[in-house]
Amino acid sequence: MSEKRFRLRELGLKVGKLNIGKLNSITDVPGVKVGHYTIIEGEGALIPGKGPVRTGVTVIIPHQGNIFKEKIVASSFVMNGYGKAIGLPQIQELGSIESVIALTGTLNIPLVADALIDYHLEENPDIGIKTSTINVVVGECNDGYLNDMQGRHVRKEHVIEAIKNASSNVEEGAVGAGTGMVSFGYKAGIGTSSRKIVVEGEEYILGVLVLSNFGRKKDLTILGQKFHHEHETDESESKEKGSIMVVVATNTPLNSRQLQRIAKRAPLGITRTGSFVSWGSGDIIISFTTANKLLHDRKDHKFETEITNETSKLFNFLLKATVEATEEAILNSLLKANTMKGRDDKKIEAISIEKIKKILVS
Amino acid sequence: MSEKRFRLRELGLKVGKLNIGKLNSITDVPGVKVGHYTIIEGEGALIPGKGPVRTGVTVIIPHQGNIFKEKIVASSFVMNGYGKAIGLPQIQELGSIESVIALTGTLNIPLVADALIDYHLEENPDIGIKTSTINVVVGECNDGYLNDMQGRHVRKEHVIEAIKNASSNVEEGAVGAGTGMVSFGYKAGIGTSSRKIVVEGEEYILGVLVLSNFGRKKDLTILGQKFHHEHETDESESKEKGSIMVVVATNTPLNSRQLQRIAKRAPLGITRTGSFVSWGSGDIIISFTTANKLLHDRKDHKFETEITNETSKLFNFLLKATVEATEEAILNSLLKANTMKGRDDKKIEAISIEKIKKILVS
Amino acid sequence: MSEKRFRLRELGLKVGKLNIGKLNSITDVPGVKVGHYTIIEGEGALIPGKGPVRTGVTVIIPHQGNIFKEKIVASSFVMNGYGKAIGLPQIQELGSIESVIALTGTLNIPLVADALIDYHLEENPDIGIKTSTINVVVGECNDGYLNDMQGRHVRKEHVIEAIKNASSNVEEGAVGAGTGMVSFGYKAGIGTSSRKIVVEGEEYILGVLVLSNFGRKKDLTILGQKFHHEHETDESESKEKGSIMVVVATNTPLNSRQLQRIAKRAPLGITRTGSFVSWGSGDIIISFTTANKLLHDRKDHKFETEITNETSKLFNFLLKATVEATEEAILNSLLKANTMKGRDDKKIEAISIEKIKKILVS
Amino acid sequence: MSEKRFRLRELGLKVGKLNIGKLNSITDVPGVKVGHYTIIEGEGALIPGKGPVRTGVTVIIPHQGNIFKEKIVASSFVMNGYGKAIGLPQIQELGSIESVIALTGTLNIPLVADALIDYHLEENPDIGIKTSTINVVVGECNDGYLNDMQGRHVRKEHVIEAIKNASSNVEEGAVGAGTGMVSFGYKAGIGTSSRKIVVEGEEYILGVLVLSNFGRKKDLTILGQKFHHEHETDESESKEKGSIMVVVATNTPLNSRQLQRIAKRAPLGITRTGSFVSWGSGDIIISFTTANKLLHDRKDHKFETEITNETSKLFNFLLKATVEATEEAILNSLLKANTMKGRDDKKIEAISIEKIKKILVS
Repeated sequence: MSEKRFRLRELGLKVGKLNIGKLNSITDVPGVKVGHYTIIEGEGALIPGKGPVRTGVTVIIPHQGNIFKEKIVASSFVMNGYGKAIGLPQIQELGSIESVIALTGTLNIPLVADALIDYHLEENPDIGIKTSTINVVVGECNDGYLNDMQGRHVRKEHVIEAIKNASSNVEEGAVGAGTGMVSFGYKAGIGTSSRKIVVEGEEYILGVLVLSNFGRKKDLTILGQKFHHEHETDESESKEKGSIMVVVATNTPLNSRQLQRIAKRAPLGITRTGSFVSWGSGDIIISFTTANKLLHDRKDHKFETEITNETSKLFNFLLKATVEATEEAILNSLLKANTMKGRDDKKIEAISIEKIKKILVS
Repeated sequence: MSEKRFRLRELGLKVGKLNIGKLNSITDVPGVKVGHYTIIEGEGALIPGKGPVRTGVTVIIPHQGNIFKEKIVASSFVMNGYGKAIGLPQIQELGSIESVIALTGTLNIPLVADALIDYHLEENPDIGIKTSTINVVVGECNDGYLNDMQGRHVRKEHVIEAIKNASSNVEEGAVGAGTGMVSFGYKAGIGTSSRKIVVEGEEYILGVLVLSNFGRKKDLTILGQKFHHEHETDESESKEKGSIMVVVATNTPLNSRQLQRIAKRAPLGITRTGSFVSWGSGDIIISFTTANKLLHDRKDHKFETEITNETSKLFNFLLKATVEATEEAILNSLLKANTMKGRDDKKIEAISIEKIKKILVS
Repeated sequence: MSEKRFRLRELGLKVGKLNIGKLNSITDVPGVKVGHYTIIEGEGALIPGKGPVRTGVTVIIPHQGNIFKEKIVASSFVMNGYGKAIGLPQIQELGSIESVIALTGTLNIPLVADALIDYHLEENPDIGIKTSTINVVVGECNDGYLNDMQGRHVRKEHVIEAIKNASSNVEEGAVGAGTGMVSFGYKAGIGTSSRKIVVEGEEYILGVLVLSNFGRKKDLTILGQKFHHEHETDESESKEKGSIMVVVATNTPLNSRQLQRIAKRAPLGITRTGSFVSWGSGDIIISFTTANKLLHDRKDHKFETEITNETSKLFNFLLKATVEATEEAILNSLLKANTMKGRDDKKIEAISIEKIKKILVS
Repeated sequence: MSEKRFRLRELGLKVGKLNIGKLNSITDVPGVKVGHYTIIEGEGALIPGKGPVRTGVTVIIPHQGNIFKEKIVASSFVMNGYGKAIGLPQIQELGSIESVIALTGTLNIPLVADALIDYHLEENPDIGIKTSTINVVVGECNDGYLNDMQGRHVRKEHVIEAIKNASSNVEEGAVGAGTGMVSFGYKAGIGTSSRKIVVEGEEYILGVLVLSNFGRKKDLTILGQKFHHEHETDESESKEKGSIMVVVATNTPLNSRQLQRIAKRAPLGITRTGSFVSWGSGDIIISFTTANKLLHDRKDHKFETEITNETSKLFNFLLKATVEATEEAILNSLLKANTMKGRDDKKIEAISIEKIKKILVS
């Protein structure tokens, strides 16, 4: 019988001092929606290519229009590039994203990318015929501890389903791309958090969604406190190999250089949970704003755009918000995940809410 | 009836002064093999997803062992990142490549990547189960002018076939990934060239293979000479949008930083054919050496490796060889390609060998 | 008796098809001014630290206001980083320049930088007291073949004098920072060129200034033609070690990412003169626009700015203009430089105008 | 009467579990020495250019040979490039450092760089005459809160003196470059720490030295615990503007790519003290190894070198060591610094050792 799960703030705990958005979610950024498709099938011994399956896909939809026709300004930062995310070179060159952003298990990347192409072709039948091709963006972590990775069980219909499912209510924990993920020795996966910044009477939102799959038990740090006594764990020092994908969204008017500065702050939130970003880690951050959409069919040779003053308080708040929301999203990914049994009967326990309360809630 | 095609040197022409390898091909680098699979099906009006098909896949096999278990030291350089190549972040982070390198049409990338996963899983059934996952590398250009891109007609069996076909004899022109490509208004595609450098009695090879799909007719420059009089062409200035993928291979002992310096010279060869690398160009270079293979299962904590002295004549020669071989490979991709008719009866002529002779061969 | 010198267009020759600005100079960009201070003292044997002196400083003044208070949007690209230019990290982070840009001989960099600090402190006495410090930008090439580099003979008063001297009329050849420079075995130094682009009735200027100090005699290529027969030169292959600094200015509204794309095209112009950018080369490009000045004392948290549509003809023209103007600026730096005798009676001849006419002017 | 100062471990506290070197200092890396020159002159109202002076210079000497002739393999990482460090482009291109590394106050950079040129010319009279020039490396933080920055009071003789003073015993706190620095509202400056790693019977050292000048009082976090209650501080959120320079040294055989991976971990240690790396921060990391010195006069075209296996435990330990030693070095920079009064009678208190004991030592 599994313990009821809670988000960090439902336990009366929080990261930092900044205010949160209404849902404390990346979907607090107006227009952003998140969808999951979760695949849990079979149990027992691994039969490569057949199962058991503990995987899925998560999509972040940056706005509700035609994303190919109205691209979003974006950037990325590779903290540690032992990762297979696709789409990054064009994000860096053009400073924009023109597709749904998908997250999944490592070996699923190609089929998920192909499904995203299908999805956008449907909406834009001129792609590759009368207009340019499309750069789809997919990130990944390795769910092979619990899942039959070789099977690449996420198929086109699952991706389309995830897109259809997308809403403002982000389920967290072992869902979607997070289904098979593990962090700090506990079940983890998807987590999200947001920060609200009010400057000169205007309200801005920055939201973070993580796919969390990193960290050794002995390093787990919650709100500055080590979660385990040294003697409670017996891992070898070299074991940390996991990864994390971080997606940062905001509605603040930013250019791609500013968005990269924001992306570079996410690792500061990651490390506050205890990781030193090991050699075998794929820590990749994608950041975007919904504020200055770039029209695919724009014909004029120049145009007006709005931009944040980097020397203003607002920009500094955005950097801080990224650190805080990343840390909190990771903690939510742990707190909301249920115990799961996967291939070869390997079992990853959920982190104990009781223990968190005991240690951290006074 | 199509004109007989010749490589540049078969016309008595050449780029630069450095010596070439035996085959004047990337496969002069010992162990490197190249394979193509070409798909030409249907004709007439485009039926999106159905055809006509003018596409394919080209694979560069860096050595004849198990590439996942014996990785090659590598780097990359993005000259202009309007491109969808996958695998680059890990190449940069780890300085290595662990898969066959494939080239194809843009929208084929995911399915070709998935096929490469299949291929390497077959050889390495422990991937994703007992050992890490695999970073596959695929580059692309847009073959949509002649081809039904939306159909993504390159499938797993074609990739496997291309790998099986791989040999030292590199077919050039409108084959494999080059099937539907166009450069400077002429049919182009795959081209290759190499340079041989002898230093202190030791012989080194640097070879280049290009997938060439860029340039406006009016800019074409062969060995320093404009190929057209101004009045012969009527393109608008803004038209250049094509791309090029360049793969540079060598057997010189280099580290990844040195290989990136080499990769950065390829655009100098590209521009000598007349391109200014337009905004819509995906000009991406991948470079590798077969000299210092990295063992996947290495257990020692340090090891000896050989490295080129960057201040030596050898390193400078490698830079120069890259420029020369890139320029010559592009010219070969044009000279060897036959006229092709594609979707909607669009026809791209082969460049005239007669005209080249007339202008350049005295 | 030295031969009269001419710019490329004075010989009836030109690079490319784009139109030029009024002066065919970086100073065609409204507000941009250039000043030199040239130091030629002593002759005969080198006495390290004493002379002979063949050096100087060149300043590019981006606009006629207070540059620290009205920063310019900027970027840079390091084609080959065997160079000592200072100020680059902050240009990349903030996408802006806040000082006069100076060029000089390599070892002079620190004293020239210190002089720029003096200059800007004078105008902005609050720097380092009530407001932030200043990031000064200085580039260099090595003038040690002719000059007593160790003496670091450029002093504060020379830099201030160069700034006072600045005007729209850019002297070219062996002046200012170019005094001791050598390219392709000939005397070289400062050169400039510009391109004018008219789009939708609006006129934009892109101008380039080079400090040219690279290339082997045997590689010199003028408008696509080799300048020497093979047998005329006897250099060893490994000799190329020189450098080039390129400054690209425009009045087009661009952000720093777009300016970096522009900076990346300058090497394409460099290579068309025959260089392969050797291992020992410091090829560094700085690009800026005068269009979207950033106010140091801006207090609002966001603001409107204008930006070029990258998919428009205008942006493509800017890329092409960079390639063309860089090539032409280098040729001007050669054509305008007079023969010079330097330390240890070493003499570098001016390139023969007669020979250029003979070869290239029909 | 100032409170006696202690290093973190003298209070019975420590960061992480890894062992430390003999001195817990960057100088535990064999051959590395550190020297300071401290300038404290005048008091009272600021007279720009005259004083009061609270500044200095710190030098890190990578080994005891001729550094220009025996270069060290190196890299750097710019976490936030609002900084003026010089020498970085060549470090990245060539993967090496060939000079003493100096740290100082921001505006002192040029004169300190010029002094380093003097120092190395003395030892290498062929520089700029018979051999190439030299790339000197200087980093900085802004000491203008306490110091007359405009005066640029660090002169050549001070730099030479610091080099002469260099030893294994690193004085910490308000000395050398750290003289005028402030972190988290407390006096700070120079701090150091090291980690010792034993693998297969071989011992490796990684040491860190920081010049610490960043952070707001309210954010200070010591070993995971906030140092202040919210109500104790009243700073505005936007105030954080400081910087930090981090130098990481090791004797492990690494190439420059591996050293950059190490450099990228230092910000993880920085953030654990409470910083989010604000927009106005110059956070720059330089990393080097003493293991694979590169001979300036090397004539062979290739050579053997040793390299760490990145998939080994050793490499992971180095990453972790960087995070731990950076955090501890920052804490030492605070704990060892004495209260200082500077320009305009501004006073920065030393952090209270008593309070640290009370909060952290049980």
